[in-house]
Amino acid sequence: MLDKVKNVIVVLSGKGGVGKSTVSTQLALALRETGYKVGLLDIDLCGPSVPYLLGLEGSDIYQCDEGWVPIYTDETKTLAVMSIGFLLKSRDDPVIWRGPKKTVMIKQFLTDVKWEELDYLIIDTPPGTSDEHITVMECMREVPCTGAVLVTTPQGVALDDVRKEITFCKKTGIKLLGIVENMSGFVCPHCTTCTNIFSSNGGVELANFAQVPHLGTLPIDPRMGVLVGSTSSVLSHLPDSSTAQVMRHIVQQLAAATAQPQEITA
Amino acid sequence: MLDKVKNVIVVLSGKGGVGKSTVSTQLALALRETGYKVGLLDIDLCGPSVPYLLGLEGSDIYQCDEGWVPIYTDETKTLAVMSIGFLLKSRDDPVIWRGPKKTVMIKQFLTDVKWEELDYLIIDTPPGTSDEHITVMECMREVPCTGAVLVTTPQGVALDDVRKEITFCKKTGIKLLGIVENMSGFVCPHCTTCTNIFSSNGGVELANFAQVPHLGTLPIDPRMGVLVGSTSSVLSHLPDSSTAQVMRHIVQQLAAATAQPQEITA
Repeated sequence: MLDKVKNVIVVLSGKGGVGKSTVSTQLALALRETGYKVGLLDIDLCGPSVPYLLGLEGSDIYQCDEGWVPIYTDETKTLAVMSIGFLLKSRDDPVIWRGPKKTVMIKQFLTDVKWEELDYLIIDTPPGTSDEHITVMECMREVPCTGAVLVTTPQGVALDDVRKEITFCKKTGIKLLGIVENMSGFVCPHCTTCTNIFSSNGGVELANFAQVPHLGTLPIDPRMGVLVGSTSSVLSHLPDSSTAQVMRHIVQQLAAATAQPQEITA
Repeated sequence: MLDKVKNVIVVLSGKGGVGKSTVSTQLALALRETGYKVGLLDIDLCGPSVPYLLGLEGSDIYQCDEGWVPIYTDETKTLAVMSIGFLLKSRDDPVIWRGPKKTVMIKQFLTDVKWEELDYLIIDTPPGTSDEHITVMECMREVPCTGAVLVTTPQGVALDDVRKEITFCKKTGIKLLGIVENMSGFVCPHCTTCTNIFSSNGGVELANFAQVPHLGTLPIDPRMGVLVGSTSSVLSHLPDSSTAQVMRHIVQQLAAATAQPQEITA
């Protein structure tokens, strides 16, 4: 039930391992910290990362008359989370499902979860442009989909896949809110020299070329590792880090881009 | 037609972006350099990377009476490559396919491609345990499947997904040839201090725990970037690098592990 959700933002990336789940999770936490009510839905059925990243592994989902109750990260109930990870008996269990079964599950996540009033629902997707993505886009015809945030790393092979994702969004009519370039430059903690391990600026150039807003460029920061397994936002935990500064700017841009539908539906 | 193929090795990883395609490609090149005839099949339909990594983008696939002819990287015909990337009109084209259509395509790659006599066919897969993987395993019942190589990065979120992949292999009866830990440690080119950006030793510990051979640990080496877009093996291009040494050792172990089926089918 998405009827109480004001904005739905889908986080996409053609390629895997570019930090989509980390960006989704930190984006949800940052939006929450800015004062919004946020939901986070993980539809990566074969590789759900959100429970692990937020330290929610082993949480149990309960069913009420109106459907599944998502996991709330604390008693303020400002962050609601749903993932297939909560439905698996063991974290070693693989989800060996073909497409049609995945489609049913994702439809259930969108229609049978009791999402309360939310300012933002962030949907973290698996890599690619297949069953999961087609299903979300189909379900999005009935509910307001605000748009997509594309995550990429700067190297050519990732950009190739993001180009495909841009074409996918255009074909399915989803608005492109912008591109986030992740893992751009690593500052050696010993000598503070920055090395562009995975090349640099590819995301910025692609954003310019495709005329999609460039939302920000996030560096590789090993300190981010301490946030894994907790619901700490980089904004509060490492407020002076370049990651926090960029994330703050991304939240501002998304809030500005989504201000109008919020007023209409409010 | 896989009847002339002596060994089929499937490269798996639960998580995306761990370097599966780079490992697959360099493994194929290293096996070729060791004197074997090698095939490389890329079944990542939504994000094919192999044509880009080998500099074969824009190559055209021809059809002969017996099926599709794979792309040979040079006139020695010691490396044959097949990928959906060769069948797309533009590299920006996304493959927006649900599972059943992907299944048909992968079956075609295995049965309708004219694979000549090969010592090794390396199959590079997308992340996850879904349509692509189920289809390959089903087709593998009719042809000899030597086993699977699992690629992981050292951090917890990747290891979680590899655990799922190990369970998948056990459930589908595929032999685990071993685990490759990738992106383990970055040596700053300025001060030569090694930072374990994505944690360390996770792959080794998982291999011990799951009683799967640990094939090797590959570092993050920005010099590997120069190999992108060429058919140069790290063995010949950066022979003294730690990547080359580890890759040589991986090839030796795989050759030893696959020696017996080779003799039987020879």
